[in-house]
Amino acid sequence: MRFGDVNTEIETLGPPCVPSPLLENEAKGSLASFVAEDDRVIVDVNAKRHKQRTQEGIEPLCFELAGPREQLFFNPANVKAGLVTCGGLCPGLNDIIRAVVLELYHCYHVEDIFGFRHGLQGFIPSYGHEVVHLGPKSVAPILDLGGTILGSSRGPQNIDDVVTRLEELGINILFMIGGDGTLVASMKIAEEVSRRGLPISVIGIPKTIDNDIYLLARSFGFDTSVGIATRSIEAAHNEARGYVNGIGLIKLMGRESGFIAASAALARQDVNFVLIPEVDFDLEGPSGFLDELEQRLADRKHAVIVVAEGAGQKFFSEQKNERDPSGNPVLHDIGTFLKQKINEHFSKKNIDIALKYIDPSYIIRSLPANPNDRIFCSFLGRDAVHAGMAGKTNMFVGNWNNHFVHVPISASAGLRKKVESSGKLWRTVLEATGQGSLISTG
Amino acid sequence: MRFGDVNTEIETLGPPCVPSPLLENEAKGSLASFVAEDDRVIVDVNAKRHKQRTQEGIEPLCFELAGPREQLFFNPANVKAGLVTCGGLCPGLNDIIRAVVLELYHCYHVEDIFGFRHGLQGFIPSYGHEVVHLGPKSVAPILDLGGTILGSSRGPQNIDDVVTRLEELGINILFMIGGDGTLVASMKIAEEVSRRGLPISVIGIPKTIDNDIYLLARSFGFDTSVGIATRSIEAAHNEARGYVNGIGLIKLMGRESGFIAASAALARQDVNFVLIPEVDFDLEGPSGFLDELEQRLADRKHAVIVVAEGAGQKFFSEQKNERDPSGNPVLHDIGTFLKQKINEHFSKKNIDIALKYIDPSYIIRSLPANPNDRIFCSFLGRDAVHAGMAGKTNMFVGNWNNHFVHVPISASAGLRKKVESSGKLWRTVLEATGQGSLISTG
Amino acid sequence: MRFGDVNTEIETLGPPCVPSPLLENEAKGSLASFVAEDDRVIVDVNAKRHKQRTQEGIEPLCFELAGPREQLFFNPANVKAGLVTCGGLCPGLNDIIRAVVLELYHCYHVEDIFGFRHGLQGFIPSYGHEVVHLGPKSVAPILDLGGTILGSSRGPQNIDDVVTRLEELGINILFMIGGDGTLVASMKIAEEVSRRGLPISVIGIPKTIDNDIYLLARSFGFDTSVGIATRSIEAAHNEARGYVNGIGLIKLMGRESGFIAASAALARQDVNFVLIPEVDFDLEGPSGFLDELEQRLADRKHAVIVVAEGAGQKFFSEQKNERDPSGNPVLHDIGTFLKQKINEHFSKKNIDIALKYIDPSYIIRSLPANPNDRIFCSFLGRDAVHAGMAGKTNMFVGNWNNHFVHVPISASAGLRKKVESSGKLWRTVLEATGQGSLISTG
Amino acid sequence: MRFGDVNTEIETLGPPCVPSPLLENEAKGSLASFVAEDDRVIVDVNAKRHKQRTQEGIEPLCFELAGPREQLFFNPANVKAGLVTCGGLCPGLNDIIRAVVLELYHCYHVEDIFGFRHGLQGFIPSYGHEVVHLGPKSVAPILDLGGTILGSSRGPQNIDDVVTRLEELGINILFMIGGDGTLVASMKIAEEVSRRGLPISVIGIPKTIDNDIYLLARSFGFDTSVGIATRSIEAAHNEARGYVNGIGLIKLMGRESGFIAASAALARQDVNFVLIPEVDFDLEGPSGFLDELEQRLADRKHAVIVVAEGAGQKFFSEQKNERDPSGNPVLHDIGTFLKQKINEHFSKKNIDIALKYIDPSYIIRSLPANPNDRIFCSFLGRDAVHAGMAGKTNMFVGNWNNHFVHVPISASAGLRKKVESSGKLWRTVLEATGQGSLISTG
Repeated sequence: MRFGDVNTEIETLGPPCVPSPLLENEAKGSLASFVAEDDRVIVDVNAKRHKQRTQEGIEPLCFELAGPREQLFFNPANVKAGLVTCGGLCPGLNDIIRAVVLELYHCYHVEDIFGFRHGLQGFIPSYGHEVVHLGPKSVAPILDLGGTILGSSRGPQNIDDVVTRLEELGINILFMIGGDGTLVASMKIAEEVSRRGLPISVIGIPKTIDNDIYLLARSFGFDTSVGIATRSIEAAHNEARGYVNGIGLIKLMGRESGFIAASAALARQDVNFVLIPEVDFDLEGPSGFLDELEQRLADRKHAVIVVAEGAGQKFFSEQKNERDPSGNPVLHDIGTFLKQKINEHFSKKNIDIALKYIDPSYIIRSLPANPNDRIFCSFLGRDAVHAGMAGKTNMFVGNWNNHFVHVPISASAGLRKKVESSGKLWRTVLEATGQGSLISTG
Repeated sequence: MRFGDVNTEIETLGPPCVPSPLLENEAKGSLASFVAEDDRVIVDVNAKRHKQRTQEGIEPLCFELAGPREQLFFNPANVKAGLVTCGGLCPGLNDIIRAVVLELYHCYHVEDIFGFRHGLQGFIPSYGHEVVHLGPKSVAPILDLGGTILGSSRGPQNIDDVVTRLEELGINILFMIGGDGTLVASMKIAEEVSRRGLPISVIGIPKTIDNDIYLLARSFGFDTSVGIATRSIEAAHNEARGYVNGIGLIKLMGRESGFIAASAALARQDVNFVLIPEVDFDLEGPSGFLDELEQRLADRKHAVIVVAEGAGQKFFSEQKNERDPSGNPVLHDIGTFLKQKINEHFSKKNIDIALKYIDPSYIIRSLPANPNDRIFCSFLGRDAVHAGMAGKTNMFVGNWNNHFVHVPISASAGLRKKVESSGKLWRTVLEATGQGSLISTG
Repeated sequence: MRFGDVNTEIETLGPPCVPSPLLENEAKGSLASFVAEDDRVIVDVNAKRHKQRTQEGIEPLCFELAGPREQLFFNPANVKAGLVTCGGLCPGLNDIIRAVVLELYHCYHVEDIFGFRHGLQGFIPSYGHEVVHLGPKSVAPILDLGGTILGSSRGPQNIDDVVTRLEELGINILFMIGGDGTLVASMKIAEEVSRRGLPISVIGIPKTIDNDIYLLARSFGFDTSVGIATRSIEAAHNEARGYVNGIGLIKLMGRESGFIAASAALARQDVNFVLIPEVDFDLEGPSGFLDELEQRLADRKHAVIVVAEGAGQKFFSEQKNERDPSGNPVLHDIGTFLKQKINEHFSKKNIDIALKYIDPSYIIRSLPANPNDRIFCSFLGRDAVHAGMAGKTNMFVGNWNNHFVHVPISASAGLRKKVESSGKLWRTVLEATGQGSLISTG
Repeated sequence: MRFGDVNTEIETLGPPCVPSPLLENEAKGSLASFVAEDDRVIVDVNAKRHKQRTQEGIEPLCFELAGPREQLFFNPANVKAGLVTCGGLCPGLNDIIRAVVLELYHCYHVEDIFGFRHGLQGFIPSYGHEVVHLGPKSVAPILDLGGTILGSSRGPQNIDDVVTRLEELGINILFMIGGDGTLVASMKIAEEVSRRGLPISVIGIPKTIDNDIYLLARSFGFDTSVGIATRSIEAAHNEARGYVNGIGLIKLMGRESGFIAASAALARQDVNFVLIPEVDFDLEGPSGFLDELEQRLADRKHAVIVVAEGAGQKFFSEQKNERDPSGNPVLHDIGTFLKQKINEHFSKKNIDIALKYIDPSYIIRSLPANPNDRIFCSFLGRDAVHAGMAGKTNMFVGNWNNHFVHVPISASAGLRKKVESSGKLWRTVLEATGQGSLISTG
């Protein structure tokens, strides 16, 4: 990945001058190992590019290192913290809530921890959602629970109202767990907070089951999702092999980026076609998808296809203006579209096939996180607390080059990480599937 | 369950007069514990009904006990066995194949074991499917594999051709693993075999993921299916609780019987409505399903619904003749139908809901069997071999009152086991869900 | 299994004459399907034995059918219920607690439900364990939790004190979940209750991870245990195959009965030796275990052995009086004993082996129940409530011939179910392992 | 981590001048995205250290990037490849074998692929292990299989004999999958190969379930191990909470590094003490482990302890010379040692405890890899093939800063990665457990 001009400086509410209660641990002999304010992680580890830039006198792009600071901005004794989860479900939400609460309570001795219910609705009194008090007892039993104990909702709310609510409740640190839309909202909240001169830290924890947030190497829940998705591929493979010309077609998540589809395909290596939003393909024509699929069936009598939900949107462009009888726009589902096209293709050719279609989306989103994601969430949640206590704001906690880092929300919001068509992940998918370009040569 | 006049006598090819090779084990001190030809299992354990019948001089209905016989009909040295798997996939198919092969090979020293590929197609040369030789090496690695290594197919084939093929290949015992249609085919094959006076034993092993074969207490794969289905319910519950007026709607298998839906609902006890083919319900009207669902949301803000695929078919009767633009009959899918009706209902009432629809069907059918089903398949497969070696025919191996038994195919074929609406399973579902009759009182 | 003179009559506190609140459901159209007081299940389904006894004029042995009664002994409005879990952990404890609480609360509208903490200690004030109030909220989140939320303890307590405590608290129905020792205690409590003329129903729910309670076809947690145990066998098999003369040795639970060992061995069918308490075997001598193991290694280069913890206790008889330096009796662990004997045997013969020893005991006992056991626990818990409300006492809820039944504790306490050495389970183990008698012919 | 003078230059057999068959893919439109020979990855991403070194004129330490090269050293048409797996089992071995074989066969069209059986023994004819031919058919069914289909063995073999065997068989590329000892052997083989002037590439793929190979950020199987280990912690936690003063003690792998123990503890966050080799602790004395454990029990009535097998070896130094009756040195097992010490401690104080000890070692090592590790193994295996085809030798494929890289074996062999006591992982463990320094202040 190449990086342009990105501002990686983190905003703070003011100079940190309250000694961290974690210093007591150091006194007790169990080292707290604080992070210095100028600890940075190099963003681009490509040595050639790095050398060239150094020769051109360009400072290498760096992210601030996450972790506990020796000096805090907030006095823990007075801190009121708030948490909110927004948007679609994703494995790990409860683990982040748990880590934030446990870190605040046990390490910083913060007891005023509040959960806002059902996303941004929770800040708007007219919805009538009660604000819930959180502590070790409320988060102890959620370890094996999928979803989010705070509930969620989609869609924006009035930013002014949100900030007013924060002010009323005296919240100092707000942890916002959500996707790209939530990050944008976080940024606006932080700006409004700043406009009003309030001492409120806004810390984002990016959620994206598609793993497509820009400048975020890995998002929580992704590993779990890939893991569960492989069970669908296993099932599809068994169905495909079970019948003459058996075809297993699995639609996986990935609106704009095919990371889940590509990764899950590599986990079993028995997938024959992977279709993702980033890589164009044709349906018809020689060497197009249907032609290659026919060839595969002729050779091996079965085939497994994984398609990301955002793949092949070009096929719907001509239908842009179609409306159903009620006047609603026709939804474009690449999974059912492919199912129909495949059936039509072989029906025209009088070839009997046995196509099974699997869409595991909601099973994946709602199940509990696996141990790997739990560990990851534990780090994310704790580092979010460290950042908030230090008075950082308008940033999210990310992971880059295996380090947890602070990223300004403005550097990422509205942008997207993509599967690079000439990168290692996609190349390995091509090697594992043996699929060609799927571009019609006709 | 009440039983009418059922003929439970098992057909045999002739008197068994070949000493079983298992007798050698007895000599070696590890007892083979043979089953006597007149060992029977009482079918109806209801003591009151039993007493009444005894007083009326009616012999109690009994099944022949399965297991090894001291005397065989076939000389193991000359036996050629065939296996075939038919119809839809079901967890445990490979485990049955494995058990049959291991029992034949290791215990009866039969080495000529053949697998017919892709169901009944495998007997018809024009399909071009090779007959595969099976032995311990070919079945050792299939332990963790879902689906069937023999492949399957749907639909009937010419019975005459099948029997001719058996004759050509010199098969003595044919193990047919399949659903109700396959049992009917088995019966016809056995009859044609008998007509031709061939010494071929036809042994069925009933497969039904819906657990709805008559006179079969439990079918293999059912336990695995319920287990996997509960993951979908867990996911749906998390989705439902995640949003205001969240609704999780899961469609589970069950064309004519709701055993999977009812059982899976009991496994987690957080389902609010279970809809099955055996129990009528209304959509509209006071106390109808939609009304009760609305009440549930008003009370608890979320709901989980499990619907068996065969439930509510009455709603489609008026659409019988509908055709889509291409002239094909409109398919009646209760899952998507309910999804639409629920959305319409709340839309009309201006109540925002968040409905998530989950259809895990093909994931369930194709995954490997769990340990419980593996043990069950091991018994089924081995008892099928014992039955075949003893010259039994036109029967299937079943399970009744926790005993493995022989059931004449004619006693069950074409009939179906149902969830009894006044039985313990359904009553417990009603207790666990708290759902009412869902019959409109309007 | 043959049955002697067993008294199967269930004790009651008095005539049931309070209409069940479940009758309301019937009025509402969702049938409650009550069980009649004289509904019975035939115990022995062996038709030959049954016929013979009928001819001799002997009434067939029957169990009372479990389920809801139309008339109750207790007025639900006044019921105070108590629950206690005793002894070692077993998958499903929380599921039973959950089912009992949900049934009492939602179906009988009983709100005074109390949990006694840490087994029988919970009744003895000097231990200082608080009695906890239970309701839907406290049992909702325990669905995926292993262990028991009530805690447990081992060992007896003074029966008089227990009954006095029940009296003080005004408990009417006591649900005791525990093993054989707990059943004996339940019986004594019921007797003391009767002596004092108290209207307290004592209902047992038998717990035995070994599945060895007499007159109980299946105990909860057993299926889960077998399932988890198979993972150890899978691991042992991989270790064994990984090395020249690799040996995987797994010790499984089973103090007096080898059900887990035998069943788990059948689930994977790649075990070569199963050693259980019920079946004698020799270590030394021709055809003894070590000789046969050596033969197996010579033939196949690897071996997998499953031993139940209670197997081979005869080898320790001569060490009965051994004491360790502190004067404690030396504990006899068949697992480590076999490990040592095998290593010695091959060391003496200069044969290199690679033995890996696996003891998964506590992992199995403490993990959550699988869906199958959850459903089973749901029935057990609900039927225990039905029995208690009807005024039954001094009984446990069991499962026989696939029906839930009432069994007098006195009929089972102190007796044990065993793997029959000439029965189907053990025969199938012999077929699957190919192991001989393991009795020295020398 | 700080890095001293490490030579990161990769040895090659000669100039690559054979065009890669992957170029054909590029022609077909599916980009192969070759790695340039001078692509490097910066090792140390600490920006401060990097800046300082740059100012001092020191070139930053870099690893060669792994991946396919446009020009190969070997002509694929003539390549004979060999694979061997050595040492203890680890999840993922079969996945690496599978990836290497599939890449060689499908992408480079190499068909002469040979597996050496049982580690280095496979090269020594006197052991009598046959060399097995590998291809897509042999690796297709091993997807869900733990262990290694090639078998393994421990201990060294004569290097000369190994190289002679390679020469005899005409092997050009040898893939050695094993731990630190195997890497040392690989280095010696590469050196002997070089001495003899043979054109044989030796490529290591480092295996270490402890995740402790120096200069390797992550080793395959580690993620799976942590995942399985968390089940033991879950079980131990349930056991601990089940009893008054319940203690769950789990011994996890980690001879010299506590990565598994530390990571697994973070996955559930309900562990109270983690003991690892890298961090000293005292048993006795105020604030020592036993004292703190007593305090924990007094406060919370239960405790969960995770100990890495290499922790606390200082306690055994005085027993160095102890011998058992047969003259063998007494083995020092920290798990059973702690169990005994804890029991003694509380026994002396007359405090009843209920300690359960869990050692899941062999279950973890032998189970199949999880999806995350499978993807990782897929990359490792394919990159090993790319490196071998390019004529690289005496190197291993590693992972650093999320990139796959080439590391000279000499740079790592004999060194070990450790949990840094002042690093993020250990600090987070201290935060999650709340454990103090466990160093006696007395």
